[in-house]
Amino acid sequence: MPQPRIIIVGAGFAGLAAAKALKKTQAEVVLIDRTNHHVFQPLLYQVATSVLTPSHIATPIRSIFRNQKNTIVIMGEVTGVDKDQKCVFVSDADRQNVSITYDYLILATGASHSYFGHNEFAEYAPGLKSLGDAEAARNKILQAFELAEAEEDPARHRDLLTFVLVGAGPTGVEMAGALAILVRTALKSDFRRIDPTSARIVLVDAAPKILGPFSENLSKAAKQRLEKLGVEVRLGHSVDQIDAEGVIVAGERIASKTVIWTAGVAPSPAGKWLNIETDRAGRVRIQKDLTVPGHVEIFVVGDTASLDQNGKPLPGVAQVAMQQGRYAGKLIHSRIVGSPPPRAFSYFDKGSMAVVGKGFAVLQSGKVQVSGLGAWLAWAAVHLQFLATSSLRLGVFLQWIWTYVTGQRGSRLIVNHHGSDKGTRSAETPLGAAAASK
Amino acid sequence: MPQPRIIIVGAGFAGLAAAKALKKTQAEVVLIDRTNHHVFQPLLYQVATSVLTPSHIATPIRSIFRNQKNTIVIMGEVTGVDKDQKCVFVSDADRQNVSITYDYLILATGASHSYFGHNEFAEYAPGLKSLGDAEAARNKILQAFELAEAEEDPARHRDLLTFVLVGAGPTGVEMAGALAILVRTALKSDFRRIDPTSARIVLVDAAPKILGPFSENLSKAAKQRLEKLGVEVRLGHSVDQIDAEGVIVAGERIASKTVIWTAGVAPSPAGKWLNIETDRAGRVRIQKDLTVPGHVEIFVVGDTASLDQNGKPLPGVAQVAMQQGRYAGKLIHSRIVGSPPPRAFSYFDKGSMAVVGKGFAVLQSGKVQVSGLGAWLAWAAVHLQFLATSSLRLGVFLQWIWTYVTGQRGSRLIVNHHGSDKGTRSAETPLGAAAASK
Repeated sequence: MPQPRIIIVGAGFAGLAAAKALKKTQAEVVLIDRTNHHVFQPLLYQVATSVLTPSHIATPIRSIFRNQKNTIVIMGEVTGVDKDQKCVFVSDADRQNVSITYDYLILATGASHSYFGHNEFAEYAPGLKSLGDAEAARNKILQAFELAEAEEDPARHRDLLTFVLVGAGPTGVEMAGALAILVRTALKSDFRRIDPTSARIVLVDAAPKILGPFSENLSKAAKQRLEKLGVEVRLGHSVDQIDAEGVIVAGERIASKTVIWTAGVAPSPAGKWLNIETDRAGRVRIQKDLTVPGHVEIFVVGDTASLDQNGKPLPGVAQVAMQQGRYAGKLIHSRIVGSPPPRAFSYFDKGSMAVVGKGFAVLQSGKVQVSGLGAWLAWAAVHLQFLATSSLRLGVFLQWIWTYVTGQRGSRLIVNHHGSDKGTRSAETPLGAAAASK
Repeated sequence: MPQPRIIIVGAGFAGLAAAKALKKTQAEVVLIDRTNHHVFQPLLYQVATSVLTPSHIATPIRSIFRNQKNTIVIMGEVTGVDKDQKCVFVSDADRQNVSITYDYLILATGASHSYFGHNEFAEYAPGLKSLGDAEAARNKILQAFELAEAEEDPARHRDLLTFVLVGAGPTGVEMAGALAILVRTALKSDFRRIDPTSARIVLVDAAPKILGPFSENLSKAAKQRLEKLGVEVRLGHSVDQIDAEGVIVAGERIASKTVIWTAGVAPSPAGKWLNIETDRAGRVRIQKDLTVPGHVEIFVVGDTASLDQNGKPLPGVAQVAMQQGRYAGKLIHSRIVGSPPPRAFSYFDKGSMAVVGKGFAVLQSGKVQVSGLGAWLAWAAVHLQFLATSSLRLGVFLQWIWTYVTGQRGSRLIVNHHGSDKGTRSAETPLGAAAASK
């Protein structure tokens, strides 16, 4: 009898956990991802702010499964699912489609940016979901300082050195803190005509507080810390407009050449592929065993799934994704070997953390609420622990120590990828200052 | 009296050495480069073969001159020179031109690829001159293995796993060796359907020997080493054709989806800017003091300059560039302070080295000719020494040890820079193998 085939789509936290849980299963595990690497998304903002290099937080997927012989890794883009024929359609680099049949399917396809219906914002306010995104943001931020240094008109200086971060969730907050540290350490002494420490960093959110899911106290502590670092926090108003000149918030224009979007996420099209019920955000409604109604062989896990627990939807965070992925893998294993299935999925919330600048984080776990250096050390330890391989752990650890001690960054490069940086260059800034009259 | 202004165009080895030599000069030094970083070109091939990350071999130019207060760094592209008005034209990201006047001008604008009149080769055989080039080559090489793993047709396997390197100078030879090591170490166990060690690596050159400037013995030793690593070396025939299907050499087609060009270089347009005599290759003919005829204030140095010594033109290598840059800086310094000028420029050749695979290099210095492990250690020491900053030295050193011991690579990532990787994806390979019949 041929071995059953388990297709896992997506090698983020959920897909990786599912594949690992199937390590000893007598099955052919096919792991499909658009890229060749697993990226540790919680640290993408450190690539965007030049602390880490892409290689610090990403590992080739097939390296991770080198010794897991039942698993084959395919780089390709899934474009659809046929539930009746039990197959997925995969497109390669040339958009040629092939179909691959499955016995079990795990969709762990995650989420991308959502501009809440304002897709025209995308051009001016890129998001932060992939390594390419993070490198584009890095190029854009560093380029702003380069253009300002070469610019005579002080009015333009101001616009070039104004950075607006839309969205005050963990990514926006961590990004704002890292940017504030960047301008006052690594960049501080590197310019002659501009003072990087005069850069204006504005964090905008429609919510009344930053770090929504955290307690009032921690949210307030994080906000105070950001303000101490010089970050302007503007809450309670959504962004009305984003264009080449900046943003408009509560009727006021903030002139800026560098806007980064971390406000909203949209789930993958898994719901469309399956032609199945989704929640309002478009996430697939799954059952207690993480399968979809009527198909015991189809699992949907992570950011693209919607499951309530204690009457509330589970959040789209790494922990949920990992626990769901592992559960799906274990449940399939039990079905294949014929052992009793695990109990219904139940998310165990270990807590949440967010770092603000240097030496300060907020941590909330059950009734425990901590802020300060201790929380920051815990944050560092946990993030190192969850990196996929020991070589990444060592690399990030050494880079963090280096950056902490010297204030220097690991990767302050603007790399031109042949025409790909069009969007990262500001639209109308003459190189004025250099035309000094002698 | 205002300070004299010295404009240096290009922050490669020559420009960097010139600016450093002007450290204590009472002058305004303006260093202009297209990018924000100095890149250590001799190690670009290690980025292309996933050993090092871009950040390992590149440093922000303004970091290098952080403490040199007389120096301002401008990121912009020089588009021309007006010798009479004594000014250079600089274009910024938006192609807006400004002019900057100078008292002294040093053009250190280097060289780019030359396809010997076959610019149509460029699309299929990218070169290796910038970080962007190296990352594109890395994407292309890694992508070939991904496409092969997903491919059923063995004939296509063969094409996908055939790598052709055009040009058997140091870059081509070092690249061939690194690629041979890559397939038999880091990639070896990572695939299920293909055997990376079966990859075919072909090194092609029109010359009768590899590593042209080296002695017969060392060239032969390097060739033997390459062949031991499985590299096919084809000499004595130039490439007639490069297209989407591969290359044609001596009438024979070598089917390949991955061709890298290291064969020819073309100097920058400095000669056109100055409207002045060049050699046949287009390099500016300079005088013994590195100035151009009739203009004691204009220096041309490095790969874009042509100077004979002992009846032979100086080679376009890093050592010449560094020594010329330093000389130009010192000469300008002596003119400004009114001290006696240094003697006419004389290149001191410290020797040449090339590494072949792992633990083997060839070294030629005067009458000394060495090959083997000792030469390799010398190669490693010298290259570490010439990296621009101590943090780069440490980073590269640690990565080399890691790679040497584990066989793993530092950066095996295919990063999609939003449409910039069109050229790096092969044109007609369906994702066939995954469509397995069950």
